Amino acid sequence: MTAVQPTLGAGERALRDRARQVIPGGMYGHMNVAAFSAAHPQFMVSGNGATVVDADGREYLDLMCSWGPMILGHGHPTVTAAITEQLRHGDCLDGTSPVAVEYAELLVDTIPSADWALFCKNGSDAVTTCVTTARAATGRRKVLVARGAYHGAVPWCALRGEGITESDQAHLIHYEYNDLGSAEAAAAEAGDDLAAIVVCPMRHDVKRDQELVDPAFARGLRTLADRTGAVLVLDDVRCTHRLDLGGSWEPLGVRPDLAAYSKPLANGQPLGAVTGSDALRDAVGSIYVTGSFWTGAVPLAAGLATLTELRRGEALPVMERAGQRLRDGLAAQALTHGFGIHQSGPVQMPMLSFTGDENFRLATAWAEAAALRGVYLHPWHNWFLSAAHTDEVIDDILQRTDGAFAALR
Amino acid sequence: MTAVQPTLGAGERALRDRARQVIPGGMYGHMNVAAFSAAHPQFMVSGNGATVVDADGREYLDLMCSWGPMILGHGHPTVTAAITEQLRHGDCLDGTSPVAVEYAELLVDTIPSADWALFCKNGSDAVTTCVTTARAATGRRKVLVARGAYHGAVPWCALRGEGITESDQAHLIHYEYNDLGSAEAAAAEAGDDLAAIVVCPMRHDVKRDQELVDPAFARGLRTLADRTGAVLVLDDVRCTHRLDLGGSWEPLGVRPDLAAYSKPLANGQPLGAVTGSDALRDAVGSIYVTGSFWTGAVPLAAGLATLTELRRGEALPVMERAGQRLRDGLAAQALTHGFGIHQSGPVQMPMLSFTGDENFRLATAWAEAAALRGVYLHPWHNWFLSAAHTDEVIDDILQRTDGAFAALR
Repeated sequence: MTAVQPTLGAGERALRDRARQVIPGGMYGHMNVAAFSAAHPQFMVSGNGATVVDADGREYLDLMCSWGPMILGHGHPTVTAAITEQLRHGDCLDGTSPVAVEYAELLVDTIPSADWALFCKNGSDAVTTCVTTARAATGRRKVLVARGAYHGAVPWCALRGEGITESDQAHLIHYEYNDLGSAEAAAAEAGDDLAAIVVCPMRHDVKRDQELVDPAFARGLRTLADRTGAVLVLDDVRCTHRLDLGGSWEPLGVRPDLAAYSKPLANGQPLGAVTGSDALRDAVGSIYVTGSFWTGAVPLAAGLATLTELRRGEALPVMERAGQRLRDGLAAQALTHGFGIHQSGPVQMPMLSFTGDENFRLATAWAEAAALRGVYLHPWHNWFLSAAHTDEVIDDILQRTDGAFAALR
Repeated sequence: MTAVQPTLGAGERALRDRARQVIPGGMYGHMNVAAFSAAHPQFMVSGNGATVVDADGREYLDLMCSWGPMILGHGHPTVTAAITEQLRHGDCLDGTSPVAVEYAELLVDTIPSADWALFCKNGSDAVTTCVTTARAATGRRKVLVARGAYHGAVPWCALRGEGITESDQAHLIHYEYNDLGSAEAAAAEAGDDLAAIVVCPMRHDVKRDQELVDPAFARGLRTLADRTGAVLVLDDVRCTHRLDLGGSWEPLGVRPDLAAYSKPLANGQPLGAVTGSDALRDAVGSIYVTGSFWTGAVPLAAGLATLTELRRGEALPVMERAGQRLRDGLAAQALTHGFGIHQSGPVQMPMLSFTGDENFRLATAWAEAAALRGVYLHPWHNWFLSAAHTDEVIDDILQRTDGAFAALR
């Protein structure tokens, strides 16, 4: 029997009271825990490997990896050493650090579709840069995106929230993920004004089961882009590095013209990247995108260290094995406790839903029961594994989720 | 006589060759040195105080402060200690670090117009968030911006570059900086659809002399916003903290409804912030903006350390004294060498142009001569001073600029 903690400690409650005064809503964006469950702490004070600690000193085994960034685990010593060493020399400098060149070379060497790389800070910086580049390359305006797909929280692609105008999204045309006919219809609607087809490597919209890409759909989009002269943009931000170091569609043999990456690039340091083909070199050179910290040396050094570590070849198999062990264990527990569940997506980016649980009420109650037992997972957003998820960690997690299933009865 | 270095060393040339292969144009955005001068190195390997070092080991006294971020100087020990200490605990976590609350409290305590703060990564994240919030608050669409003013390199406000569509900027209406009549005319054009008036604390467009704000203009915009029910947004990104810790218009007694900050917030670590009034709390809570690294703890800890240091009260007077010393010295040198120059903007954010030098050819030649003598400054963008600019540093800079003026004859 795992220990059950009372909901929200005194430290958490005090921080929430203070935060409500000086931060809109106490917290904003995807990290606002208000909708996750009553037991999810808003505040975290530290992380180490696969463990995070809240403001009351409670430890959680981490299945979110900070929503993706921690691919090697929290506080990975090699990355921390690279950060510390780069800090000794300089971070944000007047000129670019040589580490930018070294890291761009390593990305180009790792990603077959990449002939060059450009760095930024947010995933949405990267996707926006892809779209602007595609428009510059083609002299056209229309952009195809899958209905419901998240490409960032900026006006041109925002899925929700107030303050967005019709003009912001005037040139978006929607298709259905994995439905090539709908993409062809959207392209026909764009006519000779089609600049880009933007697509995620799989369907990972929140509040629905994940859906792997149909290889024929991926190949069909490639053909559609070639036939129409549009630019194929792979929004690999959420899946970066976890499915394949060469890009998430590399195993399918479908190469994008431009790709956007972020999240785990630098194991938690703020970094995004765009890579592209030689054919788009002039176009990306003709646009103007920049930011004060886009070539800051410390995140780039962290990125270089992270990719170097990933290329050693141990981290991805660890994540896959851990993910399969977790999936098998959860399936067995659900069966034992009499719950119908559906697990979707690649095992290293799992999503769990309950059968018939349309409003995610059961998922929320289960996530709350998990949080109270020291497992941090999300009721309606995919989770992420890291190289710190050893068999022992997974077994510890499973012991606790068993208690959560039992409590759900 | 100061030593003159030959243009571009072997290390720089080798890095440029490598960068051209894997980075668009060898570098992109504001840090692409191609247009600065033939002697500006693209690459920097380290920074310390007011000194930066290029890939050939050449030292430069730094008048750009990495385009603003380094307000306390490169590698400031207090900030570095805060970064290192926070790294020991955690950086990007599943939840928000308590340091976000502590830092938001300090910003709210420091900035009289601020009742709350929200964090992001880029200056353009911050300004975009202000505009979206203003639209949410008013249910209106039109946004007034000064012609030529830089608010970021994102489609809705981009000043240059390919790939921008008319729809991206469909709701922008332009006024002339410091011309209240033009702002009133723009507001009239917007009619009952006016959401926001966006303004920089001074006119700091590139390739022109800087222009301080006319206090009557600032007050007039405040009145115009109040009369029309529009939101007054101060884009304080470039001027953050250098003119007044309470916000750049605080000395004028003109308080914005929303303000955007970035650049030196965290002395080089990637961070932006929005602050706003109580009246806009609901509106900012109704929009959806977020980013994977927006509440990363390390940059926030660096921000907290930077603002704490600035509030000790020594840094701004140092910058002002240094800036005045530099301005006086440059004026005397120009006179001696027979050049007509114009120095504009606040002394801690100086801009120097040559009389009649419309294409900045003389400025470029002088900046090149300065770079060859180990002073890093820009021919057509304002410079930035830091707390590391002691009298001794300024005198050393002046000795070298004297050589640059002499070489220009």
